[in-house]
Amino acid sequence: MSAKHNPPHDAVAPSRRGLMGAAAALAPLALMPGVAQAATPNRRALRRAVESQKDESVARIQDWIRHPTIAAEGLNIQEGAQFMQRLATDAGFQTAEIMQTEGSPGVFATWDVGAAKTLGVYFMYDVKQFDPAEWNTAPPLEARLMDKAGFGKVIVGRGAVNQKGPEGAFLAALHALRAAGRPPPVNLVLVAEGEEEIGSPHFHQIVRRADVTAALSRAGGIFIPSSSQDPATGGVTLTLGAKGIIECELVSSGANWGRGPARDIHSSNKAMVDSPVWRLVAALQTLVTPDGNTPIIEGWFEHVRPLTDRERALIAQNARNTSEADWKRRNSVQHFIDDLPWRQALERLASQPTVNIEGLVAGYTGPGGKTILPGRAAAKLDLRLVPNMTRADSEAKLNAHLRARGFADIEVNVTGGYDPTETSETSRIVQAELAVCRRLGVEATLSPRSAGSWPGTVFTAAPLSLAAAQFGLGHGSGAHAPDEYFVIDSTNPRVMGLTGATMAYIDFLYEMAR
Amino acid sequence: MSAKHNPPHDAVAPSRRGLMGAAAALAPLALMPGVAQAATPNRRALRRAVESQKDESVARIQDWIRHPTIAAEGLNIQEGAQFMQRLATDAGFQTAEIMQTEGSPGVFATWDVGAAKTLGVYFMYDVKQFDPAEWNTAPPLEARLMDKAGFGKVIVGRGAVNQKGPEGAFLAALHALRAAGRPPPVNLVLVAEGEEEIGSPHFHQIVRRADVTAALSRAGGIFIPSSSQDPATGGVTLTLGAKGIIECELVSSGANWGRGPARDIHSSNKAMVDSPVWRLVAALQTLVTPDGNTPIIEGWFEHVRPLTDRERALIAQNARNTSEADWKRRNSVQHFIDDLPWRQALERLASQPTVNIEGLVAGYTGPGGKTILPGRAAAKLDLRLVPNMTRADSEAKLNAHLRARGFADIEVNVTGGYDPTETSETSRIVQAELAVCRRLGVEATLSPRSAGSWPGTVFTAAPLSLAAAQFGLGHGSGAHAPDEYFVIDSTNPRVMGLTGATMAYIDFLYEMAR
Repeated sequence: MSAKHNPPHDAVAPSRRGLMGAAAALAPLALMPGVAQAATPNRRALRRAVESQKDESVARIQDWIRHPTIAAEGLNIQEGAQFMQRLATDAGFQTAEIMQTEGSPGVFATWDVGAAKTLGVYFMYDVKQFDPAEWNTAPPLEARLMDKAGFGKVIVGRGAVNQKGPEGAFLAALHALRAAGRPPPVNLVLVAEGEEEIGSPHFHQIVRRADVTAALSRAGGIFIPSSSQDPATGGVTLTLGAKGIIECELVSSGANWGRGPARDIHSSNKAMVDSPVWRLVAALQTLVTPDGNTPIIEGWFEHVRPLTDRERALIAQNARNTSEADWKRRNSVQHFIDDLPWRQALERLASQPTVNIEGLVAGYTGPGGKTILPGRAAAKLDLRLVPNMTRADSEAKLNAHLRARGFADIEVNVTGGYDPTETSETSRIVQAELAVCRRLGVEATLSPRSAGSWPGTVFTAAPLSLAAAQFGLGHGSGAHAPDEYFVIDSTNPRVMGLTGATMAYIDFLYEMAR
Repeated sequence: MSAKHNPPHDAVAPSRRGLMGAAAALAPLALMPGVAQAATPNRRALRRAVESQKDESVARIQDWIRHPTIAAEGLNIQEGAQFMQRLATDAGFQTAEIMQTEGSPGVFATWDVGAAKTLGVYFMYDVKQFDPAEWNTAPPLEARLMDKAGFGKVIVGRGAVNQKGPEGAFLAALHALRAAGRPPPVNLVLVAEGEEEIGSPHFHQIVRRADVTAALSRAGGIFIPSSSQDPATGGVTLTLGAKGIIECELVSSGANWGRGPARDIHSSNKAMVDSPVWRLVAALQTLVTPDGNTPIIEGWFEHVRPLTDRERALIAQNARNTSEADWKRRNSVQHFIDDLPWRQALERLASQPTVNIEGLVAGYTGPGGKTILPGRAAAKLDLRLVPNMTRADSEAKLNAHLRARGFADIEVNVTGGYDPTETSETSRIVQAELAVCRRLGVEATLSPRSAGSWPGTVFTAAPLSLAAAQFGLGHGSGAHAPDEYFVIDSTNPRVMGLTGATMAYIDFLYEMAR
C-alpha cells in the first residue's frame, strides 16, 4: 500500500545535501556518542564473499520477480508464501513457518545465534498490480538485466525496488555471512506478509500470535529493507514514521438506497428516476472543502497533533537541502496547494490528513458514451492519517459523518489500513542507520514522517512498542509504476549497486549488535 | 444514441389498453376522416410473397447482424456503408450512393416509381457497443435463431431490434412487392447513417446536401422502422416527438488546469498537491440540485416550453392505460423522483430536461485499490433537451456556466447530439400509422414525446420541416443490453412475427400512397 516506503522518485527526497552538512546548526541531530565507533570486523573478507555470490544473488531476485504475488488479484497467494519460506530457509533461518490468516498467509522465521541482541526484520513478498502494455523497457515479469543510462546495469521488473531488490540485498548479506563462516551478529526474527499492497489487512494476525509477539519483543527494533539513495546526491532520507491510511470504496447503489434503479437502465428514464451516481457525487462533496484539499468529515481533526518544533526544524532542513523545482519537474506538478512555497508545502505534506480519490467507476467507462442511467457508482478513496489519529476512530467518524449527512445507504467498504507510525530519532535502530551512513560517507537526512504509509504501527503500537524503520542503500525507482528497476552494477558514483547495498546491511547488522 | 427509439422494455410503454379504448373520451384523438378507408390491394398475394421469401429475409437480417458497425470503436465503418448500399440496391432502389462525411459515411438511395406521393425512410446501420461476456443466451454476433419462452422463434444478436430486425422487415416488404410484380405505391427516398449510436454527429452533412434535401423535400414524411409491440397487450405507442440530447465528456486534468499533477502520481502527495478528480466532483455538483434531479446550469430553462393541455391529456391517458407496477418491476425501480405518482412521473419524464451521468472514469478502476493521485478524471454525461431547447444554445450555456463558476479548464468534449423533435398528430404519417394499427386491430396510444432521443430534428427542422416518426409492428427487446432479440415466429398471439411486421409495412406504404 505504501507504494514505495521512501518513494525515491515520486515523493520528497532528492538532490539534498544531507545531515552531515546541516547537522551542526541543528542540535541534537548529531549521532549519540559511541555509536559511530562500531565497525564490521574483517569487512574485506565479507565483501569478497558478497562479490563471489553476486550472480547467485541477482538470480535470486530475478527468480522472485518472476513469481509475483498480487493479493488484489488473488495471484500466487500460497505459492508466494512458499517462495518466501524457501528464501528464509536458504538464507539460514532455523525455523520458517507459513502462517495462515483469514486472508493471505505470511511467514514467521527465526534464527537464534545466541547473540545478546535481536533484530526484527519485516518483509513484504507481494507486489503492486501492473499493466504489461504500459511497460516500455522490458516486460514486467521477465526481470531483465539491462543497461540504464546514468545508472548502469539494472533489473527491470515489477517488485524490483518495491521490495524484492532491497530484500534480496538483505538476504545476500545473510548468505555472505554464512559463506564467510560467520553467524549473523544478532539473532533475527523475520515476519513476512503477502498483503502489503492491499493495506496489510491480516498482518496483525501474524504479529499478534503469542510466539511471534514473544520473539519480536526481544528485538531492539525492526526494519524493512529499502533502497532509496538519491541518484543526484547519493543521500538518503531516514523517516521517523509514516502516515496511517484507510483504503476504502464508497459505493452508492440503487439496490442499497432503495431509490434509483437497482441495475443500469436506459438514461432516458433519468427525468423520473433518481441517480445513484449523482448521489455518490453529493456524498463525496460532503467529505472535503470545495477545493478538495481539507477533510471536513465531522471530528476529523479532533486528535490531530500539530507538528512539534523539532519536526518543523527537520522539515525546514529538508526544504533547504532538496530542490523544489526538481520535485515538481519529476512529478509533473506546477503549483502546490494554495501556491504554498516549498517549506510550507512540505509541512503540509507531513502534517495534514487527506481524503484522496484514487479512482471513480460508474456506469459506462469505455470509449465514447452509452446512454445508461447506472445503478451503481463507486469511489476508491485513500485517507491518510497523521498522529494521533487512529484507523478505528477515523473509520467510525467517516461512517458517522455519512449517516449524519443522510447518506447511511452509501456503503463504506474498507479494504485495508492502519494507524500512523512514529519512531524516535534516539532509538537504537535510527542511530544505527545514521552510523552506517556516516561510516560509508552517505549523507543522511532525518524526515519526521513519510507521507506514504506502511504497516509499521503493528510493531510500534502496544504491546510491542518496537522502534520500526525502513532502511537500505542502493537505488531503484518506479514502485507502482511501469518500468520499475533496481540497480545491480552502478555506474553512478553517488549510488551503490547490489554489492554496496548488501555490505551496508552487513554493517547495519553489526551496528545493531553493539 | 437513442438506444431504442421506443424502448420496448426499458422505458414507458407496456401493458396498456390503447387508443381505441380510450379515444372516445378524448377528442380529437380519433382518426381523420377517410384515412381508415385505405387498404392494401390484393393483400393475400403479397402475404404469400412475404411468406415465400421468409427464409431469405431472416438470412438477410442474420447476415447484417454478423457485420456490425460500431462508430465509437471505429469498427467496419466503410464496410457497413457498403453493406447498407447493397441492401438498398438488392431491395430495388434505383440509386444507392455511399456519401462520405467528415465522420462515418452514409447512404443515400432513391426509388422513383413515378407515384404521386413520396415517402422518406431513415435507416441506421450501426449498433451499440457490446461485451460478449455479458451475453447469456447466445454470442452477440452469431445471430442465432432460437426459441424464447413466451415469444417463439427469435434472432438473438446485437442490433436485432435496434435496428436491423425492424429495418430488415421493411426491406422484406420491398422484396415482396417486387416478387409480386409491383412497384412500391410511393416513391422512396432512403437516408442511412452509421453514427446513430454516437449521436449522429455528421448525419446533417448527408441530409443537407442539396440533392438529398431536394429529394426529401418531396416526401410526405419520413420514418425509421421499429418494432415495439407490447408483449402483454400487443399495443404500440406512437410518439409525436422525442427529446433532444447532448452527449459529452467533462474532463478535468492537471495538464489543462495547470494545478494538480499532469499524470498519475503517488497518492501520498495529496497533502500538498491539488486533485483534478476532486475538481471534477466540484464542477459536477454545480450542474444539478443536490438530489441530482434538476439542472441548475445558468439559463437552462430559458426556452423550456411547459406541457400543453393536449400533451397532459395524452400523458394522463398513457398513465391510465399502462401499469406503473409493471414498469417499476421491469426497471428495478421502487420509487420515482420525489415519490411522484405514475401520471406525474410520466409528465416529468416528458417535460423535464436532464443532466445524467452515464459514466465516471478516473484513476484506478480495477479490483481493490491503488494509491495514486490521478492526473485526469472524466464524467460521461447525457443531457436530454425538451422543446424549445436547442443543442447549440444548450451547449453554449453549459460552457458559459462552467466558465462563470470558475471551471474554464474543464474540457467539455461533445461527442454528439441534436435538438428535440416534434411531429404533429395530424400529420399524414401519424395518421397513416394510426390507420394501419386500426385495420390490424393493434391498439395504438399517442405519446407526446419519447424521453429517448433520435436525430429526427434533421428532418423536422427547417428547411425540410418534414413530419418524422418511428413506426413498426412486431417485437424485440434488449437494445443496448445483452441478449438483444427480435421475434421471427411469434407464439405470442398479441405480437406479430417477421411476416406480420413486414405486411404492416406494406400496408403503411399503401396508406402513405393515398
